[in-house]
Amino acid sequence: MIGPGKAALLDGIAQTGSISAAGRAMGMSYKRAWTLVEAMNAMFREPLVESARGGPGGGGAALTETGQQVLNLYRQIHAQAMAVNEGRLAELRGLLADMSDRK
Amino acid sequence: MIGPGKAALLDGIAQTGSISAAGRAMGMSYKRAWTLVEAMNAMFREPLVESARGGPGGGGAALTETGQQVLNLYRQIHAQAMAVNEGRLAELRGLLADMSDRK
Repeated sequence: MIGPGKAALLDGIAQTGSISAAGRAMGMSYKRAWTLVEAMNAMFREPLVESARGGPGGGGAALTETGQQVLNLYRQIHAQAMAVNEGRLAELRGLLADMSDRK
Repeated sequence: MIGPGKAALLDGIAQTGSISAAGRAMGMSYKRAWTLVEAMNAMFREPLVESARGGPGGGGAALTETGQQVLNLYRQIHAQAMAVNEGRLAELRGLLADMSDRK
């Protein structure tokens, strides 16, 4: 439901106050960023992002309380998943080919 | 490096002894399944899948020792990530819109 891309977009919106600026910082088109925001807003009981829709240059956007809560939960889930698996992830990385071997 | 799709493909190869059968069970084309296997084999120090390349009907494939190790690690990582985040995932699911509200 929420992966690294959507979480980064929410974070960017909180930082920049703009959906288009947040998308641009991720190399994402204005349309793509809006599509993701609309999908997230429809997915949850309450919208995650509120915005004045004003075209590429206008508007202004912010996370709602639910948006901040979802972003916080995502970060905690990710951090805990990494922490509990530290040894196993190191083991998996140890099986990877060296970068110089990569095709 | 390894997500749910690649892990399911490895599991299917172990179950069926065939890259094409494993891909087919996931609704994946023969070409797509082979491309993923080749990507995984190149990504790790040792191949994860060994196969006799015999076209859609032939061949036969199995996980190597490294392939089984990677699949086991993936399963453990996933299970631990879910377990440590049980409460947070329930909280996140509680924020989702009801299915009947979904567009």
